[in-house]
Amino acid sequence: MAAVLNFVGLDVGGTTMKAAVVDGNGTVSPSVSLRTNPERGQEAGLETMGETIRQAVAAAGLTLADIAAIGVATPGLMDIRAGLILDPPNLKPWKNVPVRDRIAALFGKPTAFQNDANAAAFGEKWTGAGRGAQSMVMFTLGTGVGGGIIFGDTVIEGTHSHGGELGHLRIDLPDRGRLCGCGARGCLEAYASATAVTRRAREEMASWRGPTKLKEFYAANDDELTAKVIFDLAASGDDCAAKIVDDTAYYLALGACATIATVDPEVIVFGGGMTDAGEWFRTKIDADVRRYALPFPGNSVRIVFAELGSDAGFIGAAACAKLLMT
Amino acid sequence: MAAVLNFVGLDVGGTTMKAAVVDGNGTVSPSVSLRTNPERGQEAGLETMGETIRQAVAAAGLTLADIAAIGVATPGLMDIRAGLILDPPNLKPWKNVPVRDRIAALFGKPTAFQNDANAAAFGEKWTGAGRGAQSMVMFTLGTGVGGGIIFGDTVIEGTHSHGGELGHLRIDLPDRGRLCGCGARGCLEAYASATAVTRRAREEMASWRGPTKLKEFYAANDDELTAKVIFDLAASGDDCAAKIVDDTAYYLALGACATIATVDPEVIVFGGGMTDAGEWFRTKIDADVRRYALPFPGNSVRIVFAELGSDAGFIGAAACAKLLMT
Repeated sequence: MAAVLNFVGLDVGGTTMKAAVVDGNGTVSPSVSLRTNPERGQEAGLETMGETIRQAVAAAGLTLADIAAIGVATPGLMDIRAGLILDPPNLKPWKNVPVRDRIAALFGKPTAFQNDANAAAFGEKWTGAGRGAQSMVMFTLGTGVGGGIIFGDTVIEGTHSHGGELGHLRIDLPDRGRLCGCGARGCLEAYASATAVTRRAREEMASWRGPTKLKEFYAANDDELTAKVIFDLAASGDDCAAKIVDDTAYYLALGACATIATVDPEVIVFGGGMTDAGEWFRTKIDADVRRYALPFPGNSVRIVFAELGSDAGFIGAAACAKLLMT
Repeated sequence: MAAVLNFVGLDVGGTTMKAAVVDGNGTVSPSVSLRTNPERGQEAGLETMGETIRQAVAAAGLTLADIAAIGVATPGLMDIRAGLILDPPNLKPWKNVPVRDRIAALFGKPTAFQNDANAAAFGEKWTGAGRGAQSMVMFTLGTGVGGGIIFGDTVIEGTHSHGGELGHLRIDLPDRGRLCGCGARGCLEAYASATAVTRRAREEMASWRGPTKLKEFYAANDDELTAKVIFDLAASGDDCAAKIVDDTAYYLALGACATIATVDPEVIVFGGGMTDAGEWFRTKIDADVRRYALPFPGNSVRIVFAELGSDAGFIGAAACAKLLMT
């Protein structure tokens, strides 16, 4: 019987980077997190990546000799095939960082490189909400809306490393849709990111005629209005907050419908902070997908919430490393 | 040197079915067409399929012994993996026809089965406008808007046989978009099919204030207003017709943008009658894609017109047959 190989998955974010050893069966060792401090520059960043990987190996009770390959996930803009971070908004002032080759040289190990949202999707596909599925689409709801598309063992990276940029699916026409951070109008991200949800809440409150605790909260805690506050109020029966959540589910369902009409996946996974709201929110998205998708796939596609939380990225990075060995 | 294998590709449409022998290098022998006559029932239809295949083999100067495998493409609704036509609107009253197994049994040959729009995309990918590309998306503009997505040698069939249903990408919100034949609102097909173009033309004329030959044509030839008439008038400088063509390019570009945000292809191919308009129409779509797509992939993706015309379907069906032999 062949020994089970060990991989290190590293997920680099704008604030922290997180790594753990994951073995070939998907068993995850304790993870470690270090601060990214991108402002210290990319050489310091590469050193921190190396240190995070070393600490993850130690946390697993292993040595580097036990590691078969390494996977690194980073936020875009990037050239996935070249293993290169190009100009990522969340890692300023890094530019043109040959992450894959530097980590490969540092450890003398085969090293895989992937977009962080794609890696999170691949992680959920391997050991999370998408396990066993033939194909999977994942939407990650945070400050923005990220995405990833997986077919079997293949991450749909895209020819220009922009596969699964699902936050920029347009759900309204560009001449009248909401303005997105990318500069275009009508992108899903401008409707359904956590930032967009609070923005819509402020607008909704301004015209809301009935009673709502949202206004009271907002008057008392202007700066602290978060998507979580809105979802909690909606769960407690506040009509105005419920309207905002209903609209969010509707917009997300329209995004899901666009992926159904393109790749017709077996399962669509939603992850990120908002999905902490739980089953009642999933049910709303699910109902809108059935209502607005093409009937045949729309009746059969499974709509689920992510299971791996913030571990999905490094687990998916490890899955990319594992692929190098097959 | 291994001999080049021969395949038969058969493309079954609502009006005619068309087949030819295509060899492993993509060289196409003379094609044959027979009337489908779906109203005669599916047993008669299966017989006609067999006859079309036999005539195609003869037209190539070959015998059945020279044929390695057969590929059949049909319109939906279907179960691609099961090789089954389910309930196709264009082939009434056919229902639950096990096309793949019946053709395989009839000829004793490995037989592939594919959706007709997917097959057309695969044909263009093999020997047409998408040859050499790593990934390709194709929109087919006809009475409806069909689509296909190809990654390498893989047709994105979808888990529920609805991969590449690009005519049902929604470009406007479902509560205010144009009504589509599928019953939903806002689908691309409701804006950019040949039928939709003539419908928009009638609306545009009704409110058009300047001079336009379109009104004159329409008054004289009510029933004969076609997308071709509109495109020809636009090419000759008619402002009203030009507005309709501009809008068509805009809607098609929005469809293209949705495929960029999902699968980020190397090339996007438009095919079907409207693309006979030629380069000036392609240039309009191209400009709108650059304007409305995510900048990085939007600047690099190639927008091209199909090259194989109505042969794309049987060539792609033959390509599916070829895949069975690898």
